[in-house]
Amino acid sequence: MKHPPIHYSDYLGLEKLLSAQNPRSAQYGKLVHDEMLFITVHQAYELWFKQILFELDSVIKVFSEPSVDDREIALAVSHLQRIVEIQKLIIGQIDILETMTPMDFLEFRDFLFPASGFQSHQWRLLETKLGLKLQHRQHFNDEAFFKVLKPEHQQQIQQAMQSPSLFDLVEAWLERTPFLKMAGFDFWQTYKNAVLEYLQVEQSFVEKNSRLSPTEKEKTLQQLQMGRDTFQKFFEKKEYEAMQAQGQFRISAAALHAALFIQIYRSEPALQLPFQLISRLLDIDEKMTEWRYRHALMVQRMLGKKIGTGGSSGYDYLKSATEKHKVFSDLFSLSTFLIPRSRIPELPEEVRKKMHYQYGS
Amino acid sequence: MKHPPIHYSDYLGLEKLLSAQNPRSAQYGKLVHDEMLFITVHQAYELWFKQILFELDSVIKVFSEPSVDDREIALAVSHLQRIVEIQKLIIGQIDILETMTPMDFLEFRDFLFPASGFQSHQWRLLETKLGLKLQHRQHFNDEAFFKVLKPEHQQQIQQAMQSPSLFDLVEAWLERTPFLKMAGFDFWQTYKNAVLEYLQVEQSFVEKNSRLSPTEKEKTLQQLQMGRDTFQKFFEKKEYEAMQAQGQFRISAAALHAALFIQIYRSEPALQLPFQLISRLLDIDEKMTEWRYRHALMVQRMLGKKIGTGGSSGYDYLKSATEKHKVFSDLFSLSTFLIPRSRIPELPEEVRKKMHYQYGS
Amino acid sequence: MKHPPIHYSDYLGLEKLLSAQNPRSAQYGKLVHDEMLFITVHQAYELWFKQILFELDSVIKVFSEPSVDDREIALAVSHLQRIVEIQKLIIGQIDILETMTPMDFLEFRDFLFPASGFQSHQWRLLETKLGLKLQHRQHFNDEAFFKVLKPEHQQQIQQAMQSPSLFDLVEAWLERTPFLKMAGFDFWQTYKNAVLEYLQVEQSFVEKNSRLSPTEKEKTLQQLQMGRDTFQKFFEKKEYEAMQAQGQFRISAAALHAALFIQIYRSEPALQLPFQLISRLLDIDEKMTEWRYRHALMVQRMLGKKIGTGGSSGYDYLKSATEKHKVFSDLFSLSTFLIPRSRIPELPEEVRKKMHYQYGS
Amino acid sequence: MKHPPIHYSDYLGLEKLLSAQNPRSAQYGKLVHDEMLFITVHQAYELWFKQILFELDSVIKVFSEPSVDDREIALAVSHLQRIVEIQKLIIGQIDILETMTPMDFLEFRDFLFPASGFQSHQWRLLETKLGLKLQHRQHFNDEAFFKVLKPEHQQQIQQAMQSPSLFDLVEAWLERTPFLKMAGFDFWQTYKNAVLEYLQVEQSFVEKNSRLSPTEKEKTLQQLQMGRDTFQKFFEKKEYEAMQAQGQFRISAAALHAALFIQIYRSEPALQLPFQLISRLLDIDEKMTEWRYRHALMVQRMLGKKIGTGGSSGYDYLKSATEKHKVFSDLFSLSTFLIPRSRIPELPEEVRKKMHYQYGS
Repeated sequence: MKHPPIHYSDYLGLEKLLSAQNPRSAQYGKLVHDEMLFITVHQAYELWFKQILFELDSVIKVFSEPSVDDREIALAVSHLQRIVEIQKLIIGQIDILETMTPMDFLEFRDFLFPASGFQSHQWRLLETKLGLKLQHRQHFNDEAFFKVLKPEHQQQIQQAMQSPSLFDLVEAWLERTPFLKMAGFDFWQTYKNAVLEYLQVEQSFVEKNSRLSPTEKEKTLQQLQMGRDTFQKFFEKKEYEAMQAQGQFRISAAALHAALFIQIYRSEPALQLPFQLISRLLDIDEKMTEWRYRHALMVQRMLGKKIGTGGSSGYDYLKSATEKHKVFSDLFSLSTFLIPRSRIPELPEEVRKKMHYQYGS
Repeated sequence: MKHPPIHYSDYLGLEKLLSAQNPRSAQYGKLVHDEMLFITVHQAYELWFKQILFELDSVIKVFSEPSVDDREIALAVSHLQRIVEIQKLIIGQIDILETMTPMDFLEFRDFLFPASGFQSHQWRLLETKLGLKLQHRQHFNDEAFFKVLKPEHQQQIQQAMQSPSLFDLVEAWLERTPFLKMAGFDFWQTYKNAVLEYLQVEQSFVEKNSRLSPTEKEKTLQQLQMGRDTFQKFFEKKEYEAMQAQGQFRISAAALHAALFIQIYRSEPALQLPFQLISRLLDIDEKMTEWRYRHALMVQRMLGKKIGTGGSSGYDYLKSATEKHKVFSDLFSLSTFLIPRSRIPELPEEVRKKMHYQYGS
Repeated sequence: MKHPPIHYSDYLGLEKLLSAQNPRSAQYGKLVHDEMLFITVHQAYELWFKQILFELDSVIKVFSEPSVDDREIALAVSHLQRIVEIQKLIIGQIDILETMTPMDFLEFRDFLFPASGFQSHQWRLLETKLGLKLQHRQHFNDEAFFKVLKPEHQQQIQQAMQSPSLFDLVEAWLERTPFLKMAGFDFWQTYKNAVLEYLQVEQSFVEKNSRLSPTEKEKTLQQLQMGRDTFQKFFEKKEYEAMQAQGQFRISAAALHAALFIQIYRSEPALQLPFQLISRLLDIDEKMTEWRYRHALMVQRMLGKKIGTGGSSGYDYLKSATEKHKVFSDLFSLSTFLIPRSRIPELPEEVRKKMHYQYGS
Repeated sequence: MKHPPIHYSDYLGLEKLLSAQNPRSAQYGKLVHDEMLFITVHQAYELWFKQILFELDSVIKVFSEPSVDDREIALAVSHLQRIVEIQKLIIGQIDILETMTPMDFLEFRDFLFPASGFQSHQWRLLETKLGLKLQHRQHFNDEAFFKVLKPEHQQQIQQAMQSPSLFDLVEAWLERTPFLKMAGFDFWQTYKNAVLEYLQVEQSFVEKNSRLSPTEKEKTLQQLQMGRDTFQKFFEKKEYEAMQAQGQFRISAAALHAALFIQIYRSEPALQLPFQLISRLLDIDEKMTEWRYRHALMVQRMLGKKIGTGGSSGYDYLKSATEKHKVFSDLFSLSTFLIPRSRIPELPEEVRKKMHYQYGS
């Protein structure tokens, strides 16, 4: 009541919004019924992309502070969770688009040339802000992807590429995790010992196990040795840096250690929200991947082996990008380095207490 | 290539589309983060409402012809099916909106006054075009619902109210179904006999059934009698007209008979698509109802027992409208009049043949 | 390898599981195709009900402790979240069941007599464990609902009725929230003052507002007075107890205050998980309600106005239970008592600090 | 009432069903909470797989007849549609399984050895009955996939491999489509002419187009030539057979022609249901692919780079099978051979009439 009254229609800008559906088929010939669906689905995507970017920006802002306020973490998690919910929804939009048949698509496809999803700057912005670097992108017609974008959008992407991405900020935040070296406790050394002991016990067990045939025994020991090798590379600084140099890992060793620490001791109060945060990042990355894959399948169904409107060999590009554009794959790999809960070293009381609330003490 | 090239961004009118999100909180104070979600969700609704109306209009057009071309039925069915898919999607949007909490909503709610979903003309248009009549609407603050709409939208609704709705057109189309009286065959008479015979057999069975206790027997016979009474009202023209007058049924007797006929003999080629059509109408009506219900639950969660921004007692109105605004409830009632398949009269060969394709003959 | 090897098939008990589909139509006549779907859908429900109960029991266990360990709260939240995800899934199963038509259902319906969903003891157990009391249940054929259950299941329910429900335990846990009276701070008194002040300011504003017509002014002032009355009842112990006695509220005043406190100060570290907990309880209750409603709609579609196999008037009972069986409706009403964030009293530093982690201090 | 009464609990075999969840962790140590979810999700999968197989068998039965009754087609379509709905549901189950974390999985993973999803005979049966041949399967540890199955299940698969699959039956049914050569009309010849004419017109257009730069012109002409080559291979019997021999196509030329015919003239009454049928087969294949892909992503998340319980390198195998196990990929390729609707030859009245119902004539 302190503000001028407003009508629903004006509040939502419906005049603008509902006048933005302009089928080219109607403009250059006769309206093709299904072009309207094609437009609506893509507009709905772009609306939701804007919302995802909005949530993402707020999370980026939280992590841009040199020291992240504990009171902001729950907020960041809830915004990431919202992104996941939106992603689930828009993946479902593909089912709707597929009620359009290839025959129907063909009827207006020519009018679209050379418009193409490759020109969606919001999608590119999203990938960039999450942390996809130029050098990790799938090449497409030997041109940088942003050449097909409008100049004002190129600028937006450029700016995003020059600013810290969510990946960068989360990496830095993880590196600052205070509990890994504290009061004489050294998580990384302790964990290494626990792993080696665990592998040793497993090996003795296999060697003494009379239930296994010699072939089985050999095979199992080989697998154990492979496991040991994997851990070895992970534990030795030089080996890890070598893997980073080869592009097998992108995240810093310190951040990876912290992520593992959070995963393992996630029930301690101060780690509960950080654990949720990492889980939501994995969810978002997985849903991005799922979206790309479903999109690729749909393109194949609509076009068969034809060339996409953007001039790409559509399906092939989309398929390669599906995996390659994952941002947090290092966090997916964390599982490789887990050992059973019973083997996990207990935290010293002094460290554990630091992660609890003041009120109980 | 025969048309000027177009960029993805211009094709989708992204400049318009993505500049239509203008949070009032930012305008009159400080941006409240969740207002953006509120806007996006409602804009996505309105986008999809436009698409649903577009599909609905195309179906209405098909059924507006004095004689509906068989080649158009499959198209109409596929457009109705698309509406159902869209409905499923947008019901899911409520889960996203509920990631906003009452606390967050309260922070920008005052800026919205008196905007309210009651002012969505597309939703009203949708209800009207499906066939919801003014007299069947839930009253709301004792005013015709369209007083809160903008003049240009009132006009659209008025026009829709004066044109035949999908309900009217489907009713007329059903009435024209050719096979119910053909070559000496009278479906309605035949079906009535089959029903009466069925009820008679059931009654004898119960009466002779020694497994039932006297109380159970009496109760079962009472239920059978209730079933007989229901059928009776349905079979007698006068009784049916009386029920219509009381508002228990809206659809004409002839249309109801045809719908039953289609339901029963749905496997005959000429009835396969009509059967799908009726099923999709039920789906659409059910999803409208589900949407209204979920919307009511959400309003309750956001507002508790507060008054809605539109000045209504929100939840109560929404709850009452949920059921009352169903359009095809008579088709839901069809199940009341079904008897087991084994009791269904066989169609005379001559009638049956008429419903088959020419090629096989 | 320390355990005997096991085959996937044995691990999952597939022999048992996949031999439990025994259509009655096949046994007493000729297999009706759709009976298999009917069985599968209901078995899938029961499987998931068991899982939901399993998660619920674990949450109940956490809250059964006289003092709930902070490390367990995140676990409880994640199990509640899992229940919500399962609920979303099984609500979707109704769409699958509706691919069966009334005609198909009628073909095997007689064989089912008097089996009915009313006899699902797991559903009853679920309602009971959540906190639905006998006296709050919708009556059904004038008999206590558990008369239709098997004796062993009656016993399970009886036992659950005699044990504290999730509602009871959460209520008690809320009552124990330490921060509402602490170091001279009295949340309830402080909040009451803030509310009264807010209402006073609003009233002055309306009275001086020259933009409003006399009618509008009067109406708005009336609404404000209604708001004040609502708060009044809430603030006065006697009034609240009177509402409890009339069944308008079930939860204790102290628990309600704590829930409001958590809602309002949810960003403080020690309240972040409690806030998630309350939100998930609302989600679960809402999904239960949604499930009931969709189930009622489906029954109506399958049976029309016929009597359910369990002898109930199906749809009517289901409709009444939909709302009445809500367990946490008092928490939904919390929104009624919220005021804008800018009006919310700040916490004294001393209290606020108690809710933070030790490590930063 | 003609049959002995039955209780819901017995009807659904709940005693069996609900006693089949036996976590190994409880048996060999201490119950790990999340093992129950793991079991429930997989049991729900197997339940639904049985239902899918049941629907599939009924469709296979319809198409096993030497001449498929037109009245059965709608039924087959509705059963395929039901399969699609089930697939959508069970893909959603993966989201539920992912509420289990790698840490939790690791806690009971050892107890499962060597059980693995590779041992799901129902999944293998499903692939086989759809039409996946042994030679098209992704190899896995250099052993035929059914070595890991139980003998009785091996037999079931063997039997399925020796019976016509849905692919085989649909192919044969398509080959029998009566309208492609009828009354002097030769679809294939007519279509070929239409395509060549279309390509000719396009070429002239490009050559004369002054808007295009020489480079663009050349590129576009190259693309047209590629299109012409693709069609050429498709039109020449020998070339097509060569592609078949190389495994580029599996379906017979005659069946492919018929599928194209149905796609193009789908609005003719006699083709409406066949068109739906083909669309549903594509849906099913796409959902199988989507399921495999999501399953692969989940395995990667749970295991990182570890070896699967079945001894496979999990993720890699699953990723390769994702695409390779598609059954109806030839029907996805149909889009390659479509030309715009305006270019499609009109059917002779005599042929068209054959596809209509008798009643109108």
